Amino acid sequence: MSKTLSNILLITCFGLLLGACDSSPKKQTLGHTSILFDEATIAQVDEAMSWPLFEQSVAEAKSFVEEQMALGIQVPVPKDLAGGYTHERHKLNYLSMQQAGKLFIITGEEKYAQYVKDLLMAYAELYPSLDRHPSRKSYSPGKFFWQCLNDANWLVYTSQAYDCIYDWMSEEERNIVESKLLRPQADFLSIETPQFFNRIHNHSTWANAGVGMLGLVIGDTLLVHRSLYGLEDDGLDTETTDNDGARIKNQERAGFLAQLDLLFSPDGFYAEGPYYQRYAIYPFVVFAASLQNAKPDQKIFEYRDGILGKAVYALVNLTDEEGEFFPINDAQKGMSYYSRELISAVNIAYHFAGQNPELLSIAQKQNTVLLDAAGMHVAKDIEAGMSQPFAHKSMELTDGTDGNSGGLGILRMKGETGSLSAVLKYTAQGMGHGHFDKLSLSVYQEGAEVLQDYGVARFVNIEQKDGGGYLSENQTFAKQTIAHNALVVNRQSHYTGSTELGSQYHSDRFFFDAGNEDIKIVSAKDAHAYEGIGQQRTIALIQDELFEKPILIDVLSVASESKNHYDLPYYYFGQLLSTTWENKIAETLRPLGESDGYQHLWMEAQGTASAGNSKITWMDRNQFYTLSTLSLEGDQMTLARTGANDPKFNLRRDPMVMISREDASTSFVSILEPHGSYSTVSELSQGASSQVQGLKILFESEEYIAIEWQHISGQTYRLAIAKSNNGQEESHQIKIENKLWDWKGSYSYIKI
Amino acid sequence: MSKTLSNILLITCFGLLLGACDSSPKKQTLGHTSILFDEATIAQVDEAMSWPLFEQSVAEAKSFVEEQMALGIQVPVPKDLAGGYTHERHKLNYLSMQQAGKLFIITGEEKYAQYVKDLLMAYAELYPSLDRHPSRKSYSPGKFFWQCLNDANWLVYTSQAYDCIYDWMSEEERNIVESKLLRPQADFLSIETPQFFNRIHNHSTWANAGVGMLGLVIGDTLLVHRSLYGLEDDGLDTETTDNDGARIKNQERAGFLAQLDLLFSPDGFYAEGPYYQRYAIYPFVVFAASLQNAKPDQKIFEYRDGILGKAVYALVNLTDEEGEFFPINDAQKGMSYYSRELISAVNIAYHFAGQNPELLSIAQKQNTVLLDAAGMHVAKDIEAGMSQPFAHKSMELTDGTDGNSGGLGILRMKGETGSLSAVLKYTAQGMGHGHFDKLSLSVYQEGAEVLQDYGVARFVNIEQKDGGGYLSENQTFAKQTIAHNALVVNRQSHYTGSTELGSQYHSDRFFFDAGNEDIKIVSAKDAHAYEGIGQQRTIALIQDELFEKPILIDVLSVASESKNHYDLPYYYFGQLLSTTWENKIAETLRPLGESDGYQHLWMEAQGTASAGNSKITWMDRNQFYTLSTLSLEGDQMTLARTGANDPKFNLRRDPMVMISREDASTSFVSILEPHGSYSTVSELSQGASSQVQGLKILFESEEYIAIEWQHISGQTYRLAIAKSNNGQEESHQIKIENKLWDWKGSYSYIKI
Repeated sequence: MSKTLSNILLITCFGLLLGACDSSPKKQTLGHTSILFDEATIAQVDEAMSWPLFEQSVAEAKSFVEEQMALGIQVPVPKDLAGGYTHERHKLNYLSMQQAGKLFIITGEEKYAQYVKDLLMAYAELYPSLDRHPSRKSYSPGKFFWQCLNDANWLVYTSQAYDCIYDWMSEEERNIVESKLLRPQADFLSIETPQFFNRIHNHSTWANAGVGMLGLVIGDTLLVHRSLYGLEDDGLDTETTDNDGARIKNQERAGFLAQLDLLFSPDGFYAEGPYYQRYAIYPFVVFAASLQNAKPDQKIFEYRDGILGKAVYALVNLTDEEGEFFPINDAQKGMSYYSRELISAVNIAYHFAGQNPELLSIAQKQNTVLLDAAGMHVAKDIEAGMSQPFAHKSMELTDGTDGNSGGLGILRMKGETGSLSAVLKYTAQGMGHGHFDKLSLSVYQEGAEVLQDYGVARFVNIEQKDGGGYLSENQTFAKQTIAHNALVVNRQSHYTGSTELGSQYHSDRFFFDAGNEDIKIVSAKDAHAYEGIGQQRTIALIQDELFEKPILIDVLSVASESKNHYDLPYYYFGQLLSTTWENKIAETLRPLGESDGYQHLWMEAQGTASAGNSKITWMDRNQFYTLSTLSLEGDQMTLARTGANDPKFNLRRDPMVMISREDASTSFVSILEPHGSYSTVSELSQGASSQVQGLKILFESEEYIAIEWQHISGQTYRLAIAKSNNGQEESHQIKIENKLWDWKGSYSYIKI
Repeated sequence: MSKTLSNILLITCFGLLLGACDSSPKKQTLGHTSILFDEATIAQVDEAMSWPLFEQSVAEAKSFVEEQMALGIQVPVPKDLAGGYTHERHKLNYLSMQQAGKLFIITGEEKYAQYVKDLLMAYAELYPSLDRHPSRKSYSPGKFFWQCLNDANWLVYTSQAYDCIYDWMSEEERNIVESKLLRPQADFLSIETPQFFNRIHNHSTWANAGVGMLGLVIGDTLLVHRSLYGLEDDGLDTETTDNDGARIKNQERAGFLAQLDLLFSPDGFYAEGPYYQRYAIYPFVVFAASLQNAKPDQKIFEYRDGILGKAVYALVNLTDEEGEFFPINDAQKGMSYYSRELISAVNIAYHFAGQNPELLSIAQKQNTVLLDAAGMHVAKDIEAGMSQPFAHKSMELTDGTDGNSGGLGILRMKGETGSLSAVLKYTAQGMGHGHFDKLSLSVYQEGAEVLQDYGVARFVNIEQKDGGGYLSENQTFAKQTIAHNALVVNRQSHYTGSTELGSQYHSDRFFFDAGNEDIKIVSAKDAHAYEGIGQQRTIALIQDELFEKPILIDVLSVASESKNHYDLPYYYFGQLLSTTWENKIAETLRPLGESDGYQHLWMEAQGTASAGNSKITWMDRNQFYTLSTLSLEGDQMTLARTGANDPKFNLRRDPMVMISREDASTSFVSILEPHGSYSTVSELSQGASSQVQGLKILFESEEYIAIEWQHISGQTYRLAIAKSNNGQEESHQIKIENKLWDWKGSYSYIKI
């Protein structure tokens, strides 16, 4: 028996002797079909306390719940926005009720059950008097919170708490709680707010889960049916939009199963991207686990070829080496697989979806487990030494219900002295939280951003920043094309900045190959972001013994019959060291433009490139980086920084370099090269200069582009890319300097 | 015997069997008076290899030296500036010679001696043909390097290498090396370059040490005398200045003993500040250790009441909690007690100056020791468990030869949930590397900067940034008053920006008290930075149970008979969240002014404060900070950022907030309050709002200023500060709201 458990028992017994406890802790028996526990799990509790991760998780939950219990029962009349007292209090209430419920089952200590019951009773007393939240900022105002979304969170967590004390409560108490609070709240979130419940959207997933989980706990098959299949008659028109400007009624189907069918690609990629997938995954996995426990016939984890497990694997693969999600679309940076949603997802996926031992290593890093059957299983198998390291791999995740709406190409390369990862985005729009960033690139190195995706203009739950909600600069800057490492044509965002238009199209994978050690490559095309303009972008990571770290090749070809203005920005971090072109510095700073995000960029300096190789070198985190780009005579090079027209200082002040060109069809060819290092302690700088030279286009036609570059030692490298035929078995040949270069497949990389 | 050592012996014996070694490793015996070793130390070598830190340090040195040996003997004709090949090669040569020499003594392996001899012979062959370095950027061009300073470094390190192989070389070889290389180089650095040798300056300390150490090795008492007492007749005039604009001939005396007398305050504070003290400390301690080993009668570690040990203690106390030096004056950030100079200083101070066990904990963090008697002593005592944690304490370090030229007040407070440190600078000018920053403030928290000192505008050894040298923006921005958290009067820097004028004056401590748990306080005055204007700034750290973290009080009173324009900037880091005043945002950015550093600041927004409390809240490293300041009606609040008029992007883009006021005598009263926390993983924000309110001046006269503030709970705090009488035993009284407040000493802090 662990020390902590014996201490608890000692304290408890001491309490008994003093008459301070009115019942002895005892194993719970289940008098109803629980969504969290079964008899076998409950029988394991004593043993489970000897598995360090489980014991520690119980101790953490106790510490959290007891801190909350010490504050007393606080169920305030709702008033505040996110970050404010009533908002945060109701949030803490549902989090602590859920944990207290589980602690009651695990420890048998009635104080936890009492706490949950007291809170539920206080809520039941308040609830009948509540109208919708006084702030009417949301398309679906909640009761406890400013938006139904948070109310649905409340129901998902509270259903779990109620499940734990269900048998312990009297029937009379249950009647009060169910009739005055829980059933009305379930109806409120569904029948009374169909625009919230009946969408294909993460909001509705939460609502479906809350309603369904309550239905399972109280054995109401009608509620469960409503949650799985949606409201039959929702009365919604097809024009209404939500706060993000996205259409409410975008599909005929509704309910949890429709979400599983329509929100994920066959690879488990979620249309809105990993930040929202992380948020959405919780109701998916926790409702699925509830169904599996209470209604195993549903075989929910087998549904759609095991889509739930795939969704969890997709999520953990959508992180950098430190577990932080790639911040594509609306995404606050720093969110990671350490979040409580991912703790649940990893535990539940392990327990119910295949016991992949690599998930155990993530659970070890998370350093906490769920206080239920899934968490016990994880803790037990870790204790048994079954964990294996999780290896981030290169992969493509397709987008779209059928996997035919483009996707995300993730390349990863581990060199001897450093790793490099690149993400090429050729997904569909991603609904209201999508950005106008077709074929945009982001680059990571050992968990840090090298070429950033700006992410969202929002400070979640920070009240000073417009109550923690979306800031207007998210629309006017962060979503716009110029905010991304993507090509902007004629200073306009993709799809003229229309989510509706963007939702009709997507980019497409052209080829993806991560099968070689020395080159990993992805190529994608877009034909709709700009009318009449075709783009192909190919990203390759290459490692070679002459370069100390992997380098990145970026070939972006644009096809147009008419002349356009092209802007290709690269958002870097750190201190600019040098450029090969002459910069004319701005004596007063003016915005780069007036719309499409340009109004938020200060023009700091401009220069004109000569034909040949233009280079910019910067230093970040005591490492050097050089971007070498193939310039045409007259290319404009701009150094700019975010933050113009930003009266509330809502944007970061981040630097970028932009290549601009007036042309019809043309190609932008660049190499990003991390190199060297610097120490502020020894003050030694090593490898501070770029080693790439002689970057040029060897050949270009409608069918091919072939480029060449050299290491300063003279070693020459060549890369040919097919532009029209991507067959893997196809043979190609081009003539370079009167010599034939032939190959099979969509690209050829050679050293000569 | 350790595994590594036995492996080495095994390999060596194997080499012998193959006939690959021409001599067996053997204990060295000393045939001359060594500056590094004595017989007792050499007798300990085998045992020393069982002390992990020593063994590991030997292994690291071998790895470094053998990597260098593998590159062959490279003694190129000098050509490049810092960062370039010839510069870095000559630097690596002296570093590897020194380590190779010590490895020869410790291991007895002749390959190390051979490597040193081969390098010395190559240098001896090249040397007679060398003129001064072709780049004439320095006031004292060297032979191997662009400045004599690096040549003096070379001699300090090379003398140690030569000491190690002296007995192993033949007399004939020694004659070649001494007559063609070492003696000419010692004369070059002294007699031939008196403007370099005969100053009171860190440059001359290196020259003194190099010449003296060579003299000790070769037993030349004239060289030793020259190093200790300087050149008798240097022929220098009193007008010549160096590259920093500082006068060459600033003192009558010269030589090592004069440096010890004149460069340090009695507390061991070095006039130029910790960054240069770190650099300068190496020749001080290594020459002192050499003297102690070879000429113990000199009793150098007892000189001036043990000034050398004090200098080392001052240095380690001039760091934040992560060991990084406070970046006052010209200082590159990130330099720390992990530097090789501090490894030597800590080892030598421990061995020769008192064996303070707290130094051992720093040596443990440094994780390497010197390969000599001092390093062995440290490794041995750590192995014996004698190490004690180094505790950063609040302290004052006086400046000036007699300790009468102001000083530096360092306050540190460890709260339950966070620490806070503040540095108030009231030193003298600090020679050519000094900044115009009288009474400037910098604030640190758990090793991170909260209110920054900009530091230097320089990227040491990064060739792209003007060869790694001082950038012009160092003079035009970083040294100027507006670049600091200090009061600027009429938009002019202190002393009209003249180092010469500044060198005639200093600020003064008024009082310093770190003796209480709940308040630590320092107050200083300046009367010369601006003619006819007196300033007093008082900084207090206060902890109180109602505030989760310590807070900082800043009271700056300025006395002037005429009306002036006052600007008081605070340079913070991170994301601005909110201000209580209305900001008018700049639609185009213009510099704040045209000179004195203002030309390098972009004006981002301005607003007018109302009378009362003005607040600005920002977030950095997932923590909140609020600066509450007492505004008078009409105070201008400016948000600005560095980076204007910066054609080479030599400056960082850092934000600041500035309070501006037109007035004669007035006081600026502010509270800096770190509060709360944010997690990007849980997205919970806690304590995001300031808890300070009601900040006001209760009483102000020529004798006193008394202020009051409250916690939002209503708890009231008061602080009275004496302005004219700082006697610790003095009684004071003022009348507030018709009640007497009396106290003894220079300040009174009460809760009411």
